[in-house]
Amino acid sequence: MAKRIINFNPGPAALPLPVLEQIKDEFLDYRNTGMSIIEISHRSKPFEEALNQAVERTRRLLHLGDDFHVVFVQGGASLQFCMIPMNLALEGKPVDYLNTGTWSNKAIKEAKTLGKDVRVIASSEDRGFSYIPKAFQVDPNASYLHFTSNNTIKGTQWAEFPKAGEVPLICDMSSDIMSRPFDAKPFGLIYAGAQKNIGPAGSAMVILRKDMLDRVPASLPSMLKYTTFTGENSLYNTPACFVIYTVSLVLKWLEETVGGLEKMEKINREKADILYGFIDGSDFYRGTAEKDSRSLMNVTFRLPSEELEAKFVADASKAGLGGLKGHRSVGGCRASIYNAIGIDEVKNLVDFMADFQKKAS
Amino acid sequence: MAKRIINFNPGPAALPLPVLEQIKDEFLDYRNTGMSIIEISHRSKPFEEALNQAVERTRRLLHLGDDFHVVFVQGGASLQFCMIPMNLALEGKPVDYLNTGTWSNKAIKEAKTLGKDVRVIASSEDRGFSYIPKAFQVDPNASYLHFTSNNTIKGTQWAEFPKAGEVPLICDMSSDIMSRPFDAKPFGLIYAGAQKNIGPAGSAMVILRKDMLDRVPASLPSMLKYTTFTGENSLYNTPACFVIYTVSLVLKWLEETVGGLEKMEKINREKADILYGFIDGSDFYRGTAEKDSRSLMNVTFRLPSEELEAKFVADASKAGLGGLKGHRSVGGCRASIYNAIGIDEVKNLVDFMADFQKKAS
Repeated sequence: MAKRIINFNPGPAALPLPVLEQIKDEFLDYRNTGMSIIEISHRSKPFEEALNQAVERTRRLLHLGDDFHVVFVQGGASLQFCMIPMNLALEGKPVDYLNTGTWSNKAIKEAKTLGKDVRVIASSEDRGFSYIPKAFQVDPNASYLHFTSNNTIKGTQWAEFPKAGEVPLICDMSSDIMSRPFDAKPFGLIYAGAQKNIGPAGSAMVILRKDMLDRVPASLPSMLKYTTFTGENSLYNTPACFVIYTVSLVLKWLEETVGGLEKMEKINREKADILYGFIDGSDFYRGTAEKDSRSLMNVTFRLPSEELEAKFVADASKAGLGGLKGHRSVGGCRASIYNAIGIDEVKNLVDFMADFQKKAS
Repeated sequence: MAKRIINFNPGPAALPLPVLEQIKDEFLDYRNTGMSIIEISHRSKPFEEALNQAVERTRRLLHLGDDFHVVFVQGGASLQFCMIPMNLALEGKPVDYLNTGTWSNKAIKEAKTLGKDVRVIASSEDRGFSYIPKAFQVDPNASYLHFTSNNTIKGTQWAEFPKAGEVPLICDMSSDIMSRPFDAKPFGLIYAGAQKNIGPAGSAMVILRKDMLDRVPASLPSMLKYTTFTGENSLYNTPACFVIYTVSLVLKWLEETVGGLEKMEKINREKADILYGFIDGSDFYRGTAEKDSRSLMNVTFRLPSEELEAKFVADASKAGLGGLKGHRSVGGCRASIYNAIGIDEVKNLVDFMADFQKKAS
C-alpha cells in the first residue's frame, strides 16, 4: 500500500485516488495496445477515444449545446491571457476586465501589452482583494467582459456570475471549473488550466462559443489562433496527451462515481460549510475573505501570529495534512478543497485545527 | 506481466521500459511525499529537483557551457515555429531557412505569417524531399539560419550540420535530439518536442544561447517571450510537470544506463546499419531516402505494391511489431528506431521482414 497524505495543495492538486490507481494499473499496457498511454500516437484510435471522452463528458457535465467547442491548448491559463485579446478583441471596441486579484491582474497586463483598449471596470484592490465587486458598468460596446471566477490566493469566488447583457463573458475558471453547475450561454469563452479540478498540469481546457470564431484574425500564427484548435479537434499538432487522458478519467469519475455537477456542488458546499463554520466559531482562526465572497475551493485563514502559522503548517504536515501554507505573496494559511478532497478529509482537518488550537492556547 | 509490443511509432514513441516501470512504481507516492508526481506543487522541492535534474543532465549530455539556458515551453515544436521569428528575427535582417520537408515548411510558413523577410536558401522539394541539400549560400547578414535536423516523414537527416559562419544556427531537433553528440557552439537555439527521444508529448525542450536573449522584444506577451522562461527556470507559470519529470528519468537512463551520447550514437548507428543493410540487400523492400541523406531515426521504405504494404503493416501488428505505417501524407512504411528501441528489437523487425518477403514471393 502506498502511503498517502491528505493533499490541500492549491494546484497542481489532489486528484481522485481511483483515477490515479487506474493510470497506474494500465500504465505499461494501455487498453491492450501493448504500449503506455504516453507511447501511443495522438492520431491513434485509443488516444482519440480518450480525447473524445474528455470532450463529450465536458459537454454533458456542463450541458453545453452544439454552439460550443471544447478544445485543449497547451500553455495553461497564462497563455490564454494573451490569446484571448489577440483572438477576440474587436477593432475599435474596448475590452472590459474585472480585477479580483493576481490572476485577473495578469490577464489585464497581457491585454495591455498587446495594445488593446483595456477598461478595468471594477476592482477589489481597495480592500486587498478580499471581496468580489458588486457594482460595475459594462460598456455595451465592449468586445467582452473578462473575469476570474475563483481567486486561489485571496480565497474569493463569484457566487453568481456578472451580468453583461449582450457582451460575451470570458472567464478564467482554472480553480473552480467542474465544481458546480452553471449556465454557459452568456459565455463567449471559458478557460481553465487543468491542474486543479480536472487533471495534471500541462494543458488548458478552452470552451468557446462558435460565434467567437468569426473574430479570429487570419494574420495570427497557427498555434495562437483558436480556429486551429477547433478546426482539428485539438489535433493540429501533438497535444498534451497524458493530460487529456487523465482529464477524461477525472470527468468519468465526476459523472459516474460522483454523479454530476449538482451532486459535486452539494459536496463542495458541505465541505466549505464545515471548514468555514469551524473557523467562524473559533477566536483563534480568522478567515481572510469577506463572508459573502468566500471561495468554496480555497479557504484562506490566519492564526494569531506568523510563528503559530508556521508551526501549524509544519505540525499539519507531520500529521499527514499537506499543502496548507498560504500563497507566498500573502502568507497565512490556505486549505484548497477541490473536488478530489472528500468530506471526511475536511473533517480530519477540522479535528486537527481544533487540536492545534487547544495545544497552543 | 504487462503485454508489450515493439513500438516503432514515429512519436509519441517508445520510451525505455525501466523509465515506464519507475513511473508506475512511484505513481501513488512520489519519493515519500504521499502524493502522486501529478499532485505536487511545481514550486515544491521534489518537483524542482526533477526539473533541475532534467536541465543538468541535458547540460552534461550535450556538453553545454554556461552560455546556454535549458528551458521547457509548452506547445511543442509547433509553437516554436512562431516564437523563434517573434523573438529572434532582427529588424532589417532576413531570416534564412533550409527546406527539407513538412516540418521545415511549417516553420517557414509561420515566419512568413509574421511578416518576416524569409529567404528559403535551399530546398530538396525538387526530388520529393528525399535528400538533404548540399549547396546553399547563407546571407552573412541573416538573423539566423533555421533547419530541421531530422525529417520524420521522408526519413532524411543532416549527417553534418550546415555551416553558417557567424550567423546563429537554429534547429528543430524534435526527432533526433539526444541521439548523437554534437557541438552546440554554433547554435543560437535548439528546440525539440519531447515526444520522440526524451519523453511524453506536452512540452518542447528549448536550448538557448544567452546572447539570443538580447534580441527578445519587450513588447511581446509574457508567455511568448523566451526571457520569461529563462528568467524563472521554466517556472513563470505551472509547466508541464509530468513531462519534465519523465524527461528527467529518460535522461538519467541515457546517462547512467546507456552511458552517454557517444554510446547512444554507436547503438543508433548499429540499429540503422542492420535495417538499411537488410533493405539494400533485398529486391523486395526499397528505401525511399537517398543513401547519403538517410535518417538514423526514421527508416522509410516501400514494398512492391500498396496492397503488400497494407498487409505488411497489418501482419506486423499481429506479430507484435507496431507503428510501421508511413506518414499519412506519403504512404509506404516507416520504422522509427529512436533511442528506446534496442538492437535486438531491430533484429526482430528484420527477421519479420525477411519472413514476410519469403511468404509474399
